[in-house]
Amino acid sequence: MGEIANDATTNMALEKTIYIGPFVHCESLTELDVAVNGMIGVDEAGKIAFVLRDSKGKQIPVQEGWEDAKVVRVNARHGFFFPGFIDTHIHASQYPNAGIFGKSTLLDWLNTYTFPLERSFEDLKQAARVYNRVVARTLSHGTTTACYYATIHVPATNLLADICQSRGQRAFVGRVCMDTLGPDYYCDESAQYSLDLTKECINHIRQIDPDFELVTPIITPRFAPSCCKESLSLLGNLQAETNLPVQTHLCENKAEIQFVKAMFPDSKHYADVYDTAGLLTPKTILAHAVHLSPEEITLLKQRKSKISHCPASNTALTSGAAPIRHLLNSGLDIGLGTDVSGGYTTSLLAEAREAVMVSRHRAMLDGDEAKLSVEEALYLATRGGAKVVGLEDRIGGFEVGKDWDAQMVTFTDVGDEVELDLGEGLVDVFGPLGWSEKMEKWVFTGDDRNTVAVWVKGRLVHAREAFKV
Amino acid sequence: MGEIANDATTNMALEKTIYIGPFVHCESLTELDVAVNGMIGVDEAGKIAFVLRDSKGKQIPVQEGWEDAKVVRVNARHGFFFPGFIDTHIHASQYPNAGIFGKSTLLDWLNTYTFPLERSFEDLKQAARVYNRVVARTLSHGTTTACYYATIHVPATNLLADICQSRGQRAFVGRVCMDTLGPDYYCDESAQYSLDLTKECINHIRQIDPDFELVTPIITPRFAPSCCKESLSLLGNLQAETNLPVQTHLCENKAEIQFVKAMFPDSKHYADVYDTAGLLTPKTILAHAVHLSPEEITLLKQRKSKISHCPASNTALTSGAAPIRHLLNSGLDIGLGTDVSGGYTTSLLAEAREAVMVSRHRAMLDGDEAKLSVEEALYLATRGGAKVVGLEDRIGGFEVGKDWDAQMVTFTDVGDEVELDLGEGLVDVFGPLGWSEKMEKWVFTGDDRNTVAVWVKGRLVHAREAFKV
Repeated sequence: MGEIANDATTNMALEKTIYIGPFVHCESLTELDVAVNGMIGVDEAGKIAFVLRDSKGKQIPVQEGWEDAKVVRVNARHGFFFPGFIDTHIHASQYPNAGIFGKSTLLDWLNTYTFPLERSFEDLKQAARVYNRVVARTLSHGTTTACYYATIHVPATNLLADICQSRGQRAFVGRVCMDTLGPDYYCDESAQYSLDLTKECINHIRQIDPDFELVTPIITPRFAPSCCKESLSLLGNLQAETNLPVQTHLCENKAEIQFVKAMFPDSKHYADVYDTAGLLTPKTILAHAVHLSPEEITLLKQRKSKISHCPASNTALTSGAAPIRHLLNSGLDIGLGTDVSGGYTTSLLAEAREAVMVSRHRAMLDGDEAKLSVEEALYLATRGGAKVVGLEDRIGGFEVGKDWDAQMVTFTDVGDEVELDLGEGLVDVFGPLGWSEKMEKWVFTGDDRNTVAVWVKGRLVHAREAFKV
Repeated sequence: MGEIANDATTNMALEKTIYIGPFVHCESLTELDVAVNGMIGVDEAGKIAFVLRDSKGKQIPVQEGWEDAKVVRVNARHGFFFPGFIDTHIHASQYPNAGIFGKSTLLDWLNTYTFPLERSFEDLKQAARVYNRVVARTLSHGTTTACYYATIHVPATNLLADICQSRGQRAFVGRVCMDTLGPDYYCDESAQYSLDLTKECINHIRQIDPDFELVTPIITPRFAPSCCKESLSLLGNLQAETNLPVQTHLCENKAEIQFVKAMFPDSKHYADVYDTAGLLTPKTILAHAVHLSPEEITLLKQRKSKISHCPASNTALTSGAAPIRHLLNSGLDIGLGTDVSGGYTTSLLAEAREAVMVSRHRAMLDGDEAKLSVEEALYLATRGGAKVVGLEDRIGGFEVGKDWDAQMVTFTDVGDEVELDLGEGLVDVFGPLGWSEKMEKWVFTGDDRNTVAVWVKGRLVHAREAFKV
């Protein structure tokens, strides 16, 4: 086995391509924009060159210079193009444990399931098979951008970056820093060592992708309980020097919050631990934020830091039901994260479903206003995520100048056909449906079988048999 | 299109068959029984004739008279036989709306989404395509027994019974009775009319399956708000005369409970409405039971009535999180129901996952004891459901004398293979896993792609390409 597979795609020259058919993206948090007779031209650099909302009856080429462009049509009656999903929090190394968590909660889960698994990434062969599979799997679910936690190991972390580049997934790749309270077998030797190894990984990515066109390093203190004050400060200084993004965890679980309080008695609250170290920046992604105090919400708003909402994980580990409506109303920017393997699914479509479901549990406590609609969940999975990773000018929707990070989704009418086509997936449509209902069907009954093709920066990075150009 | 398809399977003579490989079923609520080197002989009537827990090194035939038996092996490294699932509550007619519910709750959901759809089953062509698809779809998820609500229409309800028999699914089929407070366009004319039409459907099933070997009629008052006192009494009398099973809804939603209180001012509580009518019997299946009072729990226990827990629906419609641990501790018999289309999924595997997840939300309120394990959820989906439908002597586990209602489940090692096999489904296993972890992987990352073959009463009723005898 080669350490990196599927690199055939990456260096292919792109052709100008015209995508024809319905496209759907989020107009705002609450509203979809649907262009039923859409046409989108994507240039050789993978950027959207033109967008026609109503191409009905128009002859190709609609613009000069596009005479020889390739044409890709979404040809199923219920097909459409949709922006690629943005997974703002996923532990790539924990994928082998997806679904395995028993009745644990955060702190015992880490010791029982997680640290022993992450340790195994000192073996590059383990890293190669898991990371290749994670990237292939998430692409197959339409995840065009992922914020990855790797492990403490530099070679394995660098390999993850290589694999993302090779397979063509936009990614933020972070070497995990943890210098305290980890088990003996899985812990950095010192704060300085955490910093040095982080720099090694940053340098590696600078070599393979100097302008961070596809892969970006991300400073990754695991979470406050794993990092001494000095370590957090050193990483905060690194952020100030490099202006690189940061990812960590915040207020996931009540026991964790108590632990942080005891560990950092001089801090006003959990968020203040990061703030004191200079780690709360507009480029900081904070996973979970289930139990924020009003003071913490105000501080995050001031610092323009971002939230990754991970509903499947929060339910699975009994962490809580994050008050997303309240956080949205407070003006915070929020995306969705699968948080594998606290979360069991690699699919951001499934995570959007979980976001809707968890909001119903919140509504049982807080009233109907807490409910998220399917449209809102899809916004969090695309435009919301784009803001969280600081790429709202490049991805998350279909506008001229943005990159073509997209998925083609299809499902077919049952019509008069009674027998199942077992290759087709689970979305069964009987008769006409409005677009809002189609989106509901997709989120609640769809899966990777409906995502028949996926592009990042104009490059085809995943295709099912059903996709024929 | 024929009204009933796929009837090739039903009248085939069965061959004696020996199933070889791991089998897993529930030993008790909390414990799995796993026989890694299992061998199960199934006779020409579809009944289990022998069970060998350790067949390692044994020659076939292991018993006289089985020399010419067919052999079916589960040959994937992570494959096993598992009892078929029992869906104790599903509205077959609502399948076209699966996933579509917006932000509604029970009472507005009925008027907005449900009644207009159910009305369309006056058209037998609509009934044929939806019911064929529902039965095929649920079989593909490993559902070998289903308790179906149809609609108020006799011809369509009879067609559903025909389709279940033809496709070989064990089923309870109920014509929906609702004589009051329904919309004008969808309501029985009178209580007597409800009764008469119910009898027509019972008679039809007596004709096609006189001993109710596969299909059983079930008396189905929709729920108290749809039935006047007289109607409930007439149906209660019918139960007493026929000893047929009953299905209805109970305490799903707080507004519904208030409604029933106002509608039946003389009743002590919601359950008492049914009890007064003679409808609380040991053969009565009560869907939801989210908000039972202590008096109602005591009454249900006395009457030995059964509960269908429908967690996906209860979350989707913001009905509540049913206190399943408390109900189990109270000694009630509980199964799982998909409650399509209040619930969005036709898969009882997905419903088992939802049961685990909803129990976590309960645990956030009630403490850790509320958590259901994966083993417990699988028990509810099999043995629990068998008790709920009164067939615990025939289905739900692998013992001599029971019917072979089973599914073959497979998933394969990732091993050194990096590329996805897109036909294989989502369960990725890296290295050795214990059986408890395999079950967790299945429940949390599996789907219909892992259920490669399904049998009811020894008859193969569904098979994917991956199943090769």
